Amino acid sequence: MNLAILTSGGDAPGMNAAIRGFVRRGLADGHTVFGIPRGFEGLIHAEPHTMTAASVANILMTGGTILKTSRFLDFHQVSIREMALDSLKRWQIDAVAVLGGNGSLAGANTLSESGFPIVGIPASIDNDIAGTDYSLGFDTAVNNIVSSIDKIRDTASSHERIFVVQVMGNRSGNLAIAAGLACGAEAIIIPEQSSDYASIEQRLLQTYARGKKHSFVIVAEGAGEAKTVAEELAQRTGREAKWAVLGHTQRGGPPTSHDRILAALFADKAVDLLTEGKGGFMVSLCSGSITSIPLVNVIHGQNQTLFHWQRLAELLAR
Amino acid sequence: MNLAILTSGGDAPGMNAAIRGFVRRGLADGHTVFGIPRGFEGLIHAEPHTMTAASVANILMTGGTILKTSRFLDFHQVSIREMALDSLKRWQIDAVAVLGGNGSLAGANTLSESGFPIVGIPASIDNDIAGTDYSLGFDTAVNNIVSSIDKIRDTASSHERIFVVQVMGNRSGNLAIAAGLACGAEAIIIPEQSSDYASIEQRLLQTYARGKKHSFVIVAEGAGEAKTVAEELAQRTGREAKWAVLGHTQRGGPPTSHDRILAALFADKAVDLLTEGKGGFMVSLCSGSITSIPLVNVIHGQNQTLFHWQRLAELLAR
Amino acid sequence: MNLAILTSGGDAPGMNAAIRGFVRRGLADGHTVFGIPRGFEGLIHAEPHTMTAASVANILMTGGTILKTSRFLDFHQVSIREMALDSLKRWQIDAVAVLGGNGSLAGANTLSESGFPIVGIPASIDNDIAGTDYSLGFDTAVNNIVSSIDKIRDTASSHERIFVVQVMGNRSGNLAIAAGLACGAEAIIIPEQSSDYASIEQRLLQTYARGKKHSFVIVAEGAGEAKTVAEELAQRTGREAKWAVLGHTQRGGPPTSHDRILAALFADKAVDLLTEGKGGFMVSLCSGSITSIPLVNVIHGQNQTLFHWQRLAELLAR
Amino acid sequence: MNLAILTSGGDAPGMNAAIRGFVRRGLADGHTVFGIPRGFEGLIHAEPHTMTAASVANILMTGGTILKTSRFLDFHQVSIREMALDSLKRWQIDAVAVLGGNGSLAGANTLSESGFPIVGIPASIDNDIAGTDYSLGFDTAVNNIVSSIDKIRDTASSHERIFVVQVMGNRSGNLAIAAGLACGAEAIIIPEQSSDYASIEQRLLQTYARGKKHSFVIVAEGAGEAKTVAEELAQRTGREAKWAVLGHTQRGGPPTSHDRILAALFADKAVDLLTEGKGGFMVSLCSGSITSIPLVNVIHGQNQTLFHWQRLAELLAR
Repeated sequence: MNLAILTSGGDAPGMNAAIRGFVRRGLADGHTVFGIPRGFEGLIHAEPHTMTAASVANILMTGGTILKTSRFLDFHQVSIREMALDSLKRWQIDAVAVLGGNGSLAGANTLSESGFPIVGIPASIDNDIAGTDYSLGFDTAVNNIVSSIDKIRDTASSHERIFVVQVMGNRSGNLAIAAGLACGAEAIIIPEQSSDYASIEQRLLQTYARGKKHSFVIVAEGAGEAKTVAEELAQRTGREAKWAVLGHTQRGGPPTSHDRILAALFADKAVDLLTEGKGGFMVSLCSGSITSIPLVNVIHGQNQTLFHWQRLAELLAR
Repeated sequence: MNLAILTSGGDAPGMNAAIRGFVRRGLADGHTVFGIPRGFEGLIHAEPHTMTAASVANILMTGGTILKTSRFLDFHQVSIREMALDSLKRWQIDAVAVLGGNGSLAGANTLSESGFPIVGIPASIDNDIAGTDYSLGFDTAVNNIVSSIDKIRDTASSHERIFVVQVMGNRSGNLAIAAGLACGAEAIIIPEQSSDYASIEQRLLQTYARGKKHSFVIVAEGAGEAKTVAEELAQRTGREAKWAVLGHTQRGGPPTSHDRILAALFADKAVDLLTEGKGGFMVSLCSGSITSIPLVNVIHGQNQTLFHWQRLAELLAR
Repeated sequence: MNLAILTSGGDAPGMNAAIRGFVRRGLADGHTVFGIPRGFEGLIHAEPHTMTAASVANILMTGGTILKTSRFLDFHQVSIREMALDSLKRWQIDAVAVLGGNGSLAGANTLSESGFPIVGIPASIDNDIAGTDYSLGFDTAVNNIVSSIDKIRDTASSHERIFVVQVMGNRSGNLAIAAGLACGAEAIIIPEQSSDYASIEQRLLQTYARGKKHSFVIVAEGAGEAKTVAEELAQRTGREAKWAVLGHTQRGGPPTSHDRILAALFADKAVDLLTEGKGGFMVSLCSGSITSIPLVNVIHGQNQTLFHWQRLAELLAR
Repeated sequence: MNLAILTSGGDAPGMNAAIRGFVRRGLADGHTVFGIPRGFEGLIHAEPHTMTAASVANILMTGGTILKTSRFLDFHQVSIREMALDSLKRWQIDAVAVLGGNGSLAGANTLSESGFPIVGIPASIDNDIAGTDYSLGFDTAVNNIVSSIDKIRDTASSHERIFVVQVMGNRSGNLAIAAGLACGAEAIIIPEQSSDYASIEQRLLQTYARGKKHSFVIVAEGAGEAKTVAEELAQRTGREAKWAVLGHTQRGGPPTSHDRILAALFADKAVDLLTEGKGGFMVSLCSGSITSIPLVNVIHGQNQTLFHWQRLAELLAR
């Protein structure tokens, strides 16, 4: 078969490891493998590269994506999608793997509904994709946040401050929650909940009463701005409050071993599905096992927010 | 209740996070919590400390164990164990959580069989404990190895060498396998299998034939010494082979977010079990969920080796 | 003698290593050493702690300052400084070392001019102190920035973007310049120069012409906001431009070996000066040697901007 | 002019940054720049590559050397060196920069004495080159060691052990000394001194007397083996002693900002010298300034051991 792979939307650490896994596993099975540059846009405006074992050498340990990526809003237009299908036919590609988050998987699903064999690989630092317990990049992003907060703690502790840290997550608080549990944050503010500042204030005051000198509050960007939260908490507690926006450092750097390993397992499963002729699925981690789920269920499914982790984090920070 | 916690055997990253979780969750439930220093030996030769919320401040992000640990071989003697039970009675401790690996959990099981309420928390960088998919410290150790190998790669690549890296794992190859998959190792040599040097040689020669300049072989310490493996491979391939023994850097440093989070979840479950009067269990990660398993099943169970990861690692490195 | 040490102003990595050095060296010479908490404010509102060898155990490798710090604006009032001198007399302290940046050294100089023996140790991540080639914390801060930009590069490269990174430096561009030279930034915008956007635009366009896909511009916070710079460059070049504000992650984390070593050498020299009765000096690194310079020269001196590094950085990024 | 650059001997972090600096600065001045692969051996057995600005893109932040390196013992033969000079003439190369340590600089000097314009750039993680206060790679290597020891400290502290760490340095103790001062090592054993175990024993016992639970001893590989030292100290103190050999992780990984910056400054100076027709020199850092020194003085000079750092390190660890 002629397989192809593309990466779409925001880049996520582990994408390169997945590309390597897909290419090497595909070649080992006797397929020809192509890389399509710059996401869905590349189906219209670019040409596929033939990928060899050497094309993916020394990328396992790098962030970003060697295939480049883009957000291609025009892809929701029927005419554009038809051009994409024409390209795939012209290039004699039999099946495609799409690495990306919710938007990209929706795009993959539409192509799939046109009858073209597509498999999705969940990659999003937000871990906000329905139908899988894990999406590539999340572990690296959480560790990046944790390592930034471990640094900020030195200053917070030296100045006896409240520190409000804004992390990624427009619609999902999972990154904020995991980072908060891993860092011992006193409060975690997420888009899925309205912020209860009175309760946060009370909790912070309790920790000061028992002698704590500094505290961390994590806010997902979809739930507010670090600066505003800091001002609110400074006013309520009478303490100095500083803030930081972690930004793009969250999604870069060498992927963790967890992301590299899952990338290999996901890519391996993706080749399995495409060679078995099972288009229209996303590979998934479910109850600790690598499995697959129809793309249509992903699109219409409901992502799980880790509320019990949030409760535990806030309990343990007292 | 009067709860106590001790750490035993080799230290594992995440132990401190678990101690923090156990103490804070215990206090939140209204229990009194004690820390017993230096493992089972502390039951004989030390005194418990009362733990407050502040006793476990700022330890979440540190490796090692603030309670100190030891390997206490005398604990298999009945008379010593009776002294330990006497201590616990004298200190009016109602239940104990034991953090450690297989040896420590066997010790915990024997105490438990005497009727004392004990709960085990799996902590071992080897991930070689039956009845749980995960033991604390494994993720940090794999990431430590990966980050060391990412460094060695610079030199290996500059000199066009074979590099043999010896990692921990006396009876289990899981650390070697996970690191090998995460680093793109050409071969992984583990205690659970006899080493097939002819096959490794063949694989290395294949990769040179396609232009690869350097290669990595990971060996678990229970399967041989890096130096011997390097000499064997140098002779067989005619290439220069260097070696490194990673040693104790593998088990130190700040725990990854994965280990910090699982530590909190395990500790939370351990307090659940002890307050429900369910002694004789180990907390466990099973099919993605936090659950528990009788200690006796842990002791007599069979740990799973990740053979399919090994096969995938070696396939993808071609 | 009764020596004391305090840390003042913004915390800088290496402060703890310097405290350790000062305390241990002081004790080795037979002095009694006190730590004054929270900077100059502690002279009014706190009490000194007696420092032992154990007080400074395990702090060498930590950021921040165990003595805490503050910005104490009231210290410019004569009446407040007299209260401070009264405290020092009451506590029977013979001489004080002050760790901090320009503001703190100005405070130290005023105390010194009242006749109290004071020695300054330059500590500022900005490396903007006259009379010394180096101030503690700079090397760690530059490495922190470099490591953040190495992460952002993955994303910048995957999306083919301009990336504008805002670093600390209100009046000094040294941090921006060093980070820019170490990261290969295409342009470095600093408060000591007016920004020449036409020249930056031209340079960026040249690099695209030769095939470069992404570019970095570093801006010191005193020279503008990353967001504004990004908008300006996006408009001029027609490329997408993203931005990041690195914030407090720059000044935290374990100090580099360079900062730990210089901290020891500076502290050692500070004890030398105080025991020789040479108050009113700052220890300094000058032409590769540890020496000292009158505090009054520091206050009225002119800090050097590394313009030749900036020119070299911009030349090499073409 | 036709300039060329080669890297020789052990790889050192910062070599790639220096290659980038040399190539880009050379091109900016209108020269043609060639890269010679695999060190002096490449003068006999390889062909030079033309280097463009793009050839050195994205290497600034990587360890190792893109030009590859080798130890080429045959180069001391006159006939081999004549072949090398013939190659340079045939390739129409006017001048060469050699990046490496003492052996490579001796090779460079012999070529230079034949009348060929050569400039040396000191690169050696051992910082053991006469005539310069700094050689590329030292700062990264020290930081790598420090970061490994910071990890081992967790385990050492949890088990209350002596830890003996073997670092690189066959004839020079500078790496051991700098790492020891930066890590708070209780003793530093170097090839330039006979080991005084009685004094080390006494110092360790003193620290235990004041309550210290664990201690670090650093040994440079030229002064003994970690294992032997550990056994000696265990016997003398009656404490458990563990050991680790850090190996090749010391010389890998992304170079620190210090090494990247000095690499740029050294490369810049090297192009200056060659374009001024000043062959037979090594660029050098001397009293804080970039300068140059005749290669012949480097070869016959005496490297400085940082004995005063060693004394200070041992004093501060008490």
